[in-house]
Amino acid sequence: MAKRKRVVVIGGGTGSFTVLSGLKKYEDLDLTAVVSMADDGGSTGILRDEYGVLPPGDIRQCLVALSETDDVMRDLFNFRFSNGTLRGHNFGNIFISAIEKMTGDFNESLRSISRVLGVRGQVLPVTLDNIQLIAELKNGKRLLGQSAIADCRTLGREIKKIYFNKVAKANPAVLSAIKDADLVVVGPGSFYSSLVPNFLVKGISEVLVKTKAKKVFICNLMNQFGQTDDFTAHDFIKEIEAFIEADTFHHVLYNTELPPETLLKKYSDEGKPVLFDRTLSKRYDRFVGVNLIADKIPKSVRGDIIKRTLIRHDGDKLAKAIVSLLK
Amino acid sequence: MAKRKRVVVIGGGTGSFTVLSGLKKYEDLDLTAVVSMADDGGSTGILRDEYGVLPPGDIRQCLVALSETDDVMRDLFNFRFSNGTLRGHNFGNIFISAIEKMTGDFNESLRSISRVLGVRGQVLPVTLDNIQLIAELKNGKRLLGQSAIADCRTLGREIKKIYFNKVAKANPAVLSAIKDADLVVVGPGSFYSSLVPNFLVKGISEVLVKTKAKKVFICNLMNQFGQTDDFTAHDFIKEIEAFIEADTFHHVLYNTELPPETLLKKYSDEGKPVLFDRTLSKRYDRFVGVNLIADKIPKSVRGDIIKRTLIRHDGDKLAKAIVSLLK
Repeated sequence: MAKRKRVVVIGGGTGSFTVLSGLKKYEDLDLTAVVSMADDGGSTGILRDEYGVLPPGDIRQCLVALSETDDVMRDLFNFRFSNGTLRGHNFGNIFISAIEKMTGDFNESLRSISRVLGVRGQVLPVTLDNIQLIAELKNGKRLLGQSAIADCRTLGREIKKIYFNKVAKANPAVLSAIKDADLVVVGPGSFYSSLVPNFLVKGISEVLVKTKAKKVFICNLMNQFGQTDDFTAHDFIKEIEAFIEADTFHHVLYNTELPPETLLKKYSDEGKPVLFDRTLSKRYDRFVGVNLIADKIPKSVRGDIIKRTLIRHDGDKLAKAIVSLLK
Repeated sequence: MAKRKRVVVIGGGTGSFTVLSGLKKYEDLDLTAVVSMADDGGSTGILRDEYGVLPPGDIRQCLVALSETDDVMRDLFNFRFSNGTLRGHNFGNIFISAIEKMTGDFNESLRSISRVLGVRGQVLPVTLDNIQLIAELKNGKRLLGQSAIADCRTLGREIKKIYFNKVAKANPAVLSAIKDADLVVVGPGSFYSSLVPNFLVKGISEVLVKTKAKKVFICNLMNQFGQTDDFTAHDFIKEIEAFIEADTFHHVLYNTELPPETLLKKYSDEGKPVLFDRTLSKRYDRFVGVNLIADKIPKSVRGDIIKRTLIRHDGDKLAKAIVSLLK
């Protein structure tokens, strides 16, 4: 029997949820999700502030994606209280924070929750250090925290430097997983919120450069004004490789199918589609264009209905394209 | 192979936790916990107020008692947040309320949670109606809610009538379980808070009288001033049967071993030991005296350390005494 191929997905949030949900259907894959730990908004931010825990939100989404338990438990993890003392909290965030608070051990907590959710594969925080993301702007101003950075509508033009408030050591399990992987997938995801923070962790870029794994970057479908203004697929790879090393990725997956005009209009105050312009890249051979868009709006992750739900990657199409690159 | 004996434990709270923890070790028993649904104090009260859910606290204790999952999950269910927004809430209470709020179905919620916790047997709310316990005093004053009643230091002397704010229909699953039981255990537990409310639910007393099961009442170790002032074992059975029917119980288990003098002193502002006075009962043959006391303070249910922890039933001794009555 052939050895199971080891696939590592680096990101966090909804993008990783989609990729993992698709890849989970390939039973011969050994999946690891590596999750950015910079989130400090909403329910996650409150729990971090009040309990000093690591950010649970993106971890939760990846756990749910890889869960093979019944729908009730998966829905429950994403269930968000809409009123009262618990207002705004996802149940899963409370679950992750409670067990971390009780055991004092985030890795141990994730193992327990993984058992409860029947998670196939593993979900790993990129670092176990409790860090804060900081962006320095060209005018000298500093934005403190991931949510402040995500909310800045001029970040893309003004950013000078992005870093953590202290050195973040890589989770050793993440370094091993990347080193031993057959394929590493980075993206899709919010550029400065979900993708970049992974490569600000000490050791991650180095191990990604060194690993013999095939490396694939997945471009976002849509740009986000303020973050990636008018990025082409080429800009995406150039900018992310600025945090790693030029030509790290063997393949860059981008979407070829424009969303319907009506959706684009609704989304127009958020951003425009990410396009590919062959003339911009010397290494255009590594760009792989595929129809990656969800035909209909997916059954939303309960409690997580936000504008970007409208235009989404299709997990199955993504997984098919990724797996084809593995052969 | 002999048919598994069906044992129903009626009560709620710490008393049921202890009985169930002991009985769980007898693998040939088919266990059902019937839980009083009048609680409205602490974390349970807040969740009821804010989310309109059924009281989770006593249900949680019974689920944990019957759980066969690892200690981390069992401890987590009882873990209580000590600060922040979630202060005072047990994680398990939030879990039970979240799933009820999401599914709108308490029975379905309990089935899901039972799977997560690996519960052997079943935990059933005595009623699915959202009710409030009311005590009417001799002076005409009314105490609204179980926690107000539990806090009244003169209740035992002053109580005239105890009832719900509306008719509570029995959970049909509870009626079946009692009807088909081989043994029904009532108690131990706070008299007006955990025991009596079960028999205020329409149909419960009737089915308990009718069932061919052997019926055992377990007296508390200690009286609680304000609730059961100077009750003897005889008073306990007389008072509970006033809510059911005289001579319902075949056996009354009471403790024969006095707690150490030092503990009795510490407990002296709470109440005195429950004693047996043979001269008080015409049917003294049904009283069974056994050493039922825990030799050392049990590993506390995390987050639930309260004064009554000091003097506790021993779950194993209780279970042994109960099982001996089954033969």
